[in-house]
Amino acid sequence: MILNSSSSARDVRMACRSGTFTLPTAGLASGFAQANLVILPRDWAFDFLLFCQRNPQPCPLLEVTDPGDPVPRLSTPDADLRTDLPGYRVWKNGELVQEPDDITQWWRDDLVSFLIGCSFTFEAELLRNRIPIRHLECGCNVPMYRTNRPCVAAGTFAGPLVVSMRPLAPADVIRAVEVTSAFPKSHGSPVHFGDPEALGISDLSSPDFGDAVPIRDGEVPVFWACGVTPQAALAHARPPLAITHQPGKMFLTDLAE
Amino acid sequence: MILNSSSSARDVRMACRSGTFTLPTAGLASGFAQANLVILPRDWAFDFLLFCQRNPQPCPLLEVTDPGDPVPRLSTPDADLRTDLPGYRVWKNGELVQEPDDITQWWRDDLVSFLIGCSFTFEAELLRNRIPIRHLECGCNVPMYRTNRPCVAAGTFAGPLVVSMRPLAPADVIRAVEVTSAFPKSHGSPVHFGDPEALGISDLSSPDFGDAVPIRDGEVPVFWACGVTPQAALAHARPPLAITHQPGKMFLTDLAE
Repeated sequence: MILNSSSSARDVRMACRSGTFTLPTAGLASGFAQANLVILPRDWAFDFLLFCQRNPQPCPLLEVTDPGDPVPRLSTPDADLRTDLPGYRVWKNGELVQEPDDITQWWRDDLVSFLIGCSFTFEAELLRNRIPIRHLECGCNVPMYRTNRPCVAAGTFAGPLVVSMRPLAPADVIRAVEVTSAFPKSHGSPVHFGDPEALGISDLSSPDFGDAVPIRDGEVPVFWACGVTPQAALAHARPPLAITHQPGKMFLTDLAE
Repeated sequence: MILNSSSSARDVRMACRSGTFTLPTAGLASGFAQANLVILPRDWAFDFLLFCQRNPQPCPLLEVTDPGDPVPRLSTPDADLRTDLPGYRVWKNGELVQEPDDITQWWRDDLVSFLIGCSFTFEAELLRNRIPIRHLECGCNVPMYRTNRPCVAAGTFAGPLVVSMRPLAPADVIRAVEVTSAFPKSHGSPVHFGDPEALGISDLSSPDFGDAVPIRDGEVPVFWACGVTPQAALAHARPPLAITHQPGKMFLTDLAE
């Protein structure tokens, strides 16, 4: 099956589960909310849930599962979070140790999964408003950058805001603010546009995650809070075990965008 | 000092702290967000935080404190949650055991405080829109009712949605939906209007909390999710210790409504 914007979220999940799809999910299954994933042991879950509560723009929670349950029963009851993403990152004590396509072997009865909204969710609505999305045009992953803006800490979770970037013409920036402000569960309005230095980003051509995209004459870079932010906080907190998605390779929920 | 709608949130907190104010807070300190309070031991905090995440309309979180810290440092850094409310309820194993004006003697190093948005916050905006508020006219507490709608459970926290009720004429209902929909952190839009039986409420003249108010000819009862909902969930979960506000006697934050 070829996956595209007309696919269902379930189509994408099943292709991931069977191991036939391992690519970024931007542009797929238009109309379904996409989610960043963070999995932590129960002992670490309160502090991380508090980190999300205190930083709702980078970490808007779509669902948090019961300990030990790999099924997001409220949003997507036929999914299995151990198999249904294109790619995972496994972290031990804050260090990346493996990037598998399946985390069944890592699963434990005390793991809690956090589904965090993603800006890919509002891209379909931007396209419907005729706002071009460069990384979709280029067929690459969205560029993401660490910033100099600290998140509000919670327990040992702390770190910088991470942002995604889309270059737009000024009229499209205005329309993009109007459109994305209606999507608070997908990071909402941008956090900044224009000078990358104001966010402490020195070189747009070297993103910390994802791929660089060209910025054309008359365009300004527009920055949205990004669900990779928790990965920076995990690196700081150094829990004994954490599992996340690979940047750009999201979980497709059954939630309407 | 006489407290009224022109008072500051700090005026109200200081009057509570000195023991001179022990009444409901509806109508006070217009422009400041009011909050329901739930305090739980750290061991119970994850499940309760998850309960709030899963039930955002009755339990919109304004702030959650660090364990042991009685100061809501993000919203109201000069406050002390042990003294700054008009009245508290202390619960042991789900049973109400005391209703003090001060909980200093109950404080422990493992207690986590949850500040949950309150519909009193949007009442000032309703008044600015010339929508009358019956319990303010009557000088009594807002009527609150248990409903037949279950919340989404989290761990051992489960129970019915509790609602507050304001009688309004139909044109005012429409305007009230417009106004309150802009206040998602204060329960947002109503959950129901009209027939109380649809919510399992058999007698509007006998509220479960607060005071009954008259409904005039041509008015319909309008129901909003209420921050007393967690108190029903606490009664179900029966934690060894919990402390809440007394219904209608809220914490005044420094947050703009």
